Parts: sequence; structure tokens; C-alpha cells
Amino acid sequence: MEIESHTMKCCCVIGGTGFIGSFVVRALLRKGRHVIVVARNEVPTRSLPDNVEYVPGDFGDKYFIRGILRGVDEIIDLAYATVPKTSYDNPIQDILENLPPLVNMLDVASALNLEKIVLISSGGVIYGHSLNTPINEEHPTNPISPYGITKLAVEKYARMFHLTHDLPVVCVRPGNAYGETQKPFIGQGFIAAAIASILCGLELTLYGESGTVRDYIHVEDIAEGIVAALLKGPPGSIYNIGSGEGRNNRDILDALQPLAQAEGLEVKLKTLPLRKFDVPVNVLDSSRLSWDTGWTMRIPFEDGIIRTWNWYRDNRSV
Amino acid sequence: MEIESHTMKCCCVIGGTGFIGSFVVRALLRKGRHVIVVARNEVPTRSLPDNVEYVPGDFGDKYFIRGILRGVDEIIDLAYATVPKTSYDNPIQDILENLPPLVNMLDVASALNLEKIVLISSGGVIYGHSLNTPINEEHPTNPISPYGITKLAVEKYARMFHLTHDLPVVCVRPGNAYGETQKPFIGQGFIAAAIASILCGLELTLYGESGTVRDYIHVEDIAEGIVAALLKGPPGSIYNIGSGEGRNNRDILDALQPLAQAEGLEVKLKTLPLRKFDVPVNVLDSSRLSWDTGWTMRIPFEDGIIRTWNWYRDNRSV
Repeated sequence: MEIESHTMKCCCVIGGTGFIGSFVVRALLRKGRHVIVVARNEVPTRSLPDNVEYVPGDFGDKYFIRGILRGVDEIIDLAYATVPKTSYDNPIQDILENLPPLVNMLDVASALNLEKIVLISSGGVIYGHSLNTPINEEHPTNPISPYGITKLAVEKYARMFHLTHDLPVVCVRPGNAYGETQKPFIGQGFIAAAIASILCGLELTLYGESGTVRDYIHVEDIAEGIVAALLKGPPGSIYNIGSGEGRNNRDILDALQPLAQAEGLEVKLKTLPLRKFDVPVNVLDSSRLSWDTGWTMRIPFEDGIIRTWNWYRDNRSV
Repeated sequence: MEIESHTMKCCCVIGGTGFIGSFVVRALLRKGRHVIVVARNEVPTRSLPDNVEYVPGDFGDKYFIRGILRGVDEIIDLAYATVPKTSYDNPIQDILENLPPLVNMLDVASALNLEKIVLISSGGVIYGHSLNTPINEEHPTNPISPYGITKLAVEKYARMFHLTHDLPVVCVRPGNAYGETQKPFIGQGFIAAAIASILCGLELTLYGESGTVRDYIHVEDIAEGIVAALLKGPPGSIYNIGSGEGRNNRDILDALQPLAQAEGLEVKLKTLPLRKFDVPVNVLDSSRLSWDTGWTMRIPFEDGIIRTWNWYRDNRSV
């Protein structure tokens, strides 16, 4: 046992109780990692497997972070204080709550003997209006939300610490995550909002006639992509993690319609004009990640949406 | 007189007492503008022409900025709290002192009926390692200093406010400014440091055998470029302002050598290894600015360096 614990690599997952984070933790355990989860709440907001170490603390506190990261081999950082929509209301909070803690952490991490650190950027917002579809990692990055701008800054700080301090950092840009346990009505996650609205009989808002086109990918595939980037992505790399398929909001509702009908439920819709800050189309090309790491998407949308629907149906608190 | 003052356009120059700012103020007066200068110090740090209004204040204070900008037609913002070199020592200060005030200001400015607002970015640091020479505005932006990263964020916020709030903003990316009144030894400005070192008999440090290649352009040409962008640059544009010519540190010293010799002075040199955070070459292509506005560089390096030398010689405080 002594020996085993010494040979097991230790991965610290910052923000490991979040939607994507909790799936990343499970993917890491499958790879034989010892996992430490760091998050703000005294008690984990999502239940964690028994063999995971949970350490509550303020990730912006340099001393706390330095203590936690002692002896850690790898870091995956999923913590982010804001979401795209709310970042418009307070772009300064978006700066203050995200960038200084991140830069502190990269600074601390640069002094350690890390094997790899993965930062979670965003494939959905970092490109802004796409010039072509699907978007690969060389596409210009012109985010049009404060959230997207700070995410871009995060990538640039990562790159800087890689070049100036040899920090072995990889950035990943996931598409729109969906799946079991995603919280609805928090300003992102159309599928979660749609399913929860149907189950609760609430009206769902569509911006534009068919809404926007997004690259929806099941959270488990994103988690596997993040872990693939951790294990096999050369330091300094950036990877999209997407399905390569574009679906608009009507497509999602068409997929949910038969599931709702089977339960005797209906989809109630309200249409509002397009919003200036929504890019119309976002579809990601993830060939680079597949090429470098062998990662492929495993859960087709048609299966993922059923899993997701069933989970909400069986777990609604109403 | 009443009528005249009402027909004169009013331009607010934030940071108008700085090196570039003071030349911008003069260029604006030549274009018939009423000029308001906003800066932090109670008394201007550089003397301003008589007909310029000076208002000391904290540019990060939303209420102050809102009051000042009432009735203003145009804004040129040159304020920046940091320089590339010092930003490495405290990247978090670089974030906190630059981004929140800038976002506040853009937010306030978006609610006004402005004709144009020009933000000063940086052609010297925003691109990072250049893939080709000279660099045009479509070149990837991969800054490797905290200063460069926040400057890039500034451009992205500008773009966002342009797209979402119709803010008529133009960003300019000047090369390495040199010329009369530049302060030596503040972490940027090789020419000022070189001249001051020679005049004071101090040893000058070169990183690498010939130092780095930069696009040196006289501050008056930069000021004219900024004003050209203000007058004729379509909102949403980004412009390089450079000479298109690359000079390494040895080239600069070769140009100063005969001037020093004429005064019986010599150049004392110390060579240190190249620094990781210096990009080796940076030369800017400014054709877009010339095409859109008619701007051209007026002061050849050979003349500019003599003007600059003479000014330091005649104004040294020793």
C-alpha cells in the first residue's frame, strides 16, 4: 500500500465539484490517479467518490494554493467565477474574480515540478463570429463577451508562463457541454434549461426563429477529452473539444419533443428577437485533439439526449 | 467668440501629459480642437500649451469620468499604469490598475454620443514572436508579457463595446516611440536610455550581441498617426503605426556614435545574454493606416535621432 500510494500520480482538480469537474474526477480515477478536489464550499456541492480527497479553500489565496499543490503531479483547473451571460452585467467583477487568482496560480505552479497542467478555456465563446465551420484552433479569437475576453486572457497568460517559465500547460476549448447533473437556469446550458422547462411546465425562450447553432457535446466526452489532453497533449498546446456537429435550438427541441410526449408533457415556447451578443453559429473542429491523443467522441447526440432527459425526469426535485 | 467655441470640437485626452500624449495634444490643437487633458497629478507633469484645459483626477473613478466626458465629442486614451518590463514583476497589479478603469470608461463612453474614441494599444508587444516582417494587423496576437496581454484584452473590450453598444472606437498599435522629452531609464525606450547613458557616462546594457530589432518611430509621427485614426479611421478599425524599418540596438548606437564623438563622449557597453521575454524582431506594416487616412511618416530616422540627441544634450539636468 505504501508503495502503491507513492507510485500513483496525484492530480489536483480545481473546481472539481462543478458540472464538468465531477465527470473529470471520475475519468481521472479510471486512469488510476489519486485525485484531490479543491473548491470553495465547505462541503462539496456535488457528491464525490469515496477515494477522492476534498479540500475546501480559496483558490485566489496564494498561500492556500501553494500548500495544496505541494506534491501534486498534475493540475486541472476548471474554476471560473462567471458565465458568459452574467459577465455582461458586471465585466469588472468578471476580471477581478477570475484573472488575479488564475495568474497567482500559474505563478505558484511555475515554481513546482509539475508534469502537466490543463486549463479550461471555452470553444463556445473564444472565437466570436466564426468565419468558417467547423472552427479549428487557428481561427481568429474575437470574443464578444467579457467572459470570452477573460478566457482569452487566461490562455495568453498560460502561453506566457509556458514560454518564460517552462510551465507544462495545455489549454482546452470545449464546446457546449450537456448531460446529467447540469444545473438549469444559470445563464448557460440550453439543453438543461429546455428539459427543466418542459418537466416543470415553464415557457422556454428562443432568441430568433430557430435560436443559435451550437456544438453540443456530452459532458463525459468533454471530460475524456480533458484527461486525454492531460495525458498526451504536448505542453503549449491548445485543443478544441467538440462534436463537430451544429444544432440550433429547434433541433434540440425536435429531439426532446418525442421524449416529452411520451410523458404527456409539452414544449411551451416564447420567441424573442436575436440578441446582439449571441454569435449565430459555433461548431468546433477537434481533429487536433484526436490526432495528438487518440480521443474521439463516444456518445452520439441521439443517445446523450435520452440519457440526459431520463436523468432529469428521475431526479427532478418537484 | 461664443459661436466659435460652440463649433470647435472638443477632444478629451486621457493621459495627455505623457510622452506620446503631449505630442498628441499639440497635433490636436493644430487640427483646431478644443483639448481637455485628464491625468492623475494635481499639476501637469509636462507643460501644456495655454489653451488646453487640464483636469486632474482618477480615471478609474466612474463618476469623475462621467462628469468629465459630458459634452466631449472625442476621446483619446493614452493612460496606462504599467510598462512591459515592470509588468513581469507584478502581473496582478498590471491587471488591476489597467483593466477595470478601462472597462469603466468604455461603459461610460458607450452611453455618450461620441464621434470617435481612440485607444492606444501596442504594436511592439501585442504580436509576440513575429512569423514574418513587417507585421500587419492580421498577424496572430500572442503577447509574451503581462502588459501585452492586458493591452490585447483592452482591444477585445473595445471590439466588444463596438459590436454590442455601437461605440465608435478605433485602436492603434504604435511601434517604439522615441524623441524629445522621453524619460530615460523607466523600463522602456532604448534610444532615450542610450542617449542619457552616453551623456551621463553610464554603462549601457545590451541583451544579446546586437540586441533586439525594433520599429523605432518618432513620437511626432505617432501623434499624427493617432490623430489621423481619430479623424478618418472607421469605427472598429485597428491600425499599426510604425516606420516599417527594423533597427537593432547596435544600429542605434552606430547612429549615436558620431553625435557622441562630436561632443567628446563615448559609448560604454555591457553585454548580457538574451532575455526570454524579449521577442527578437518587431517591425510594423502601417499600410492600412496610410490607405485609410493618408497618414505617412514624415520624420526619417536619421533626422529624428539628431533632433532627439540635441534635445537631450541641451536639456540634461546634470
